[in-house]
Amino acid sequence: MTTKPLLDCVRIVLVEPSHPGNIGAVARSMRTMGLHDLCLVNPKKYPHYEASKRAAGGEIVLDGARVVDSVDAAIEDCTLVFGTSVRDREVSWPTVNPRQAASKIADHLQQFNGSEGHIAVLFGRESSGLTNAELELCQQQIRIDANPEYSSLNLASAVQIIAYDLRMQSLASDLVDSKQTPQPLSASERRQLPADKKMQDGHLQHLQTVLEALDFIKSDSPTVLYRKLRRLYSKAELTVEEVQILRGMLTAVQQRTQEN
Amino acid sequence: MTTKPLLDCVRIVLVEPSHPGNIGAVARSMRTMGLHDLCLVNPKKYPHYEASKRAAGGEIVLDGARVVDSVDAAIEDCTLVFGTSVRDREVSWPTVNPRQAASKIADHLQQFNGSEGHIAVLFGRESSGLTNAELELCQQQIRIDANPEYSSLNLASAVQIIAYDLRMQSLASDLVDSKQTPQPLSASERRQLPADKKMQDGHLQHLQTVLEALDFIKSDSPTVLYRKLRRLYSKAELTVEEVQILRGMLTAVQQRTQEN
Repeated sequence: MTTKPLLDCVRIVLVEPSHPGNIGAVARSMRTMGLHDLCLVNPKKYPHYEASKRAAGGEIVLDGARVVDSVDAAIEDCTLVFGTSVRDREVSWPTVNPRQAASKIADHLQQFNGSEGHIAVLFGRESSGLTNAELELCQQQIRIDANPEYSSLNLASAVQIIAYDLRMQSLASDLVDSKQTPQPLSASERRQLPADKKMQDGHLQHLQTVLEALDFIKSDSPTVLYRKLRRLYSKAELTVEEVQILRGMLTAVQQRTQEN
Repeated sequence: MTTKPLLDCVRIVLVEPSHPGNIGAVARSMRTMGLHDLCLVNPKKYPHYEASKRAAGGEIVLDGARVVDSVDAAIEDCTLVFGTSVRDREVSWPTVNPRQAASKIADHLQQFNGSEGHIAVLFGRESSGLTNAELELCQQQIRIDANPEYSSLNLASAVQIIAYDLRMQSLASDLVDSKQTPQPLSASERRQLPADKKMQDGHLQHLQTVLEALDFIKSDSPTVLYRKLRRLYSKAELTVEEVQILRGMLTAVQQRTQEN
């Protein structure tokens, strides 16, 4: 893989966050999804112990966070800028959902083919979001399609959702890009492989023999029953080991009924 | 649209949550995505002002939350149960990501065609997650594919991600479903519905009784075997009729071995 990883190219920008706890929680959300570039525009209280506390294992993101005094400074090296909103705006803005945004970002980076590309995603104030002037600095608006009856996501939750879709997109892109090297399987791993058709049929044949010996199958349409049992076990997608267990049980029934 | 909406069928179950603040934050996460069925298994501190405070506009979810004293009680009316985890387990469990789980839930509900179906998603303790015994009560494991270097999502963040994918799926399904007219189910169609947890457990209990009578279970680790059998039949997603067939076979074995 030669393109710079998607998660290394995306910057989360918090515009005037009021609560230091939210900054920490955002850092944690980012870290769990593998994002690390955090930029704070005029945070009300920062640094602050509450931010460090809520960051938990995301402290590395917090430590690397950059504080700037304007949105312009936060995004000046970016080639693509998104603003986030859960509300409808009067001025209709090109709007995508988080999944579409992630896909758009991957396409965008593809064009850069390894050179530096920075993408910013702006999150507004907890109380009032982004101003229209700030939104105008963005190419696109990302809207999380929340419950219209109560759409007020916590700041870290909004970041979490967008970071999650970025990560999903990144994993999908990596699968396409990377070459897979197969590993030899151990004996116990082989037993967890799906049973082949021959093994499956062997089990069903064994089951049929036992059911007939038990007189469980009466004259009326045994084939319907077999079809149902075949379907049941095919839904289970049996492994080699599971076929061995099932046949072991059948043998135990046979031994007990024959020895009497 | 007449099928019961997906978001009305999914129950979020928190198993022994320690921090009341997390319970409130989960309620808020649920509410923003349109989920409302919350069940708490032995919460450490609840009710608690911290829960109400963090719930913010999600208080309606909190007010409707049910408190129970066991996971069994939380899921007994459920036909499909998921456990969540960010870690790999020794026993490999059928694992899906949140998006696949949402799609699976939509497919599952489609089969019900308007009748009652409940689906549970279990979230473990903040510190230690779900126990293996709890995970065994689940048909499938949902794994959020988090950053392997730091995968510890806040409880509300994990719920937020899964609720988000459920909402995305729900919005997509509603578009598809809205043109369908459901028919009332006939008796034979009802037998094709998924068996609920109680029926599934009844079958496993019956199987255990028979295996013990057959001396199939030796002293060496019967629990491993039961776990494997539980997993096998849970993969099959048994219908009511299939449970009836399996129990019929077990009864036939009992009758034959007892009459001799």
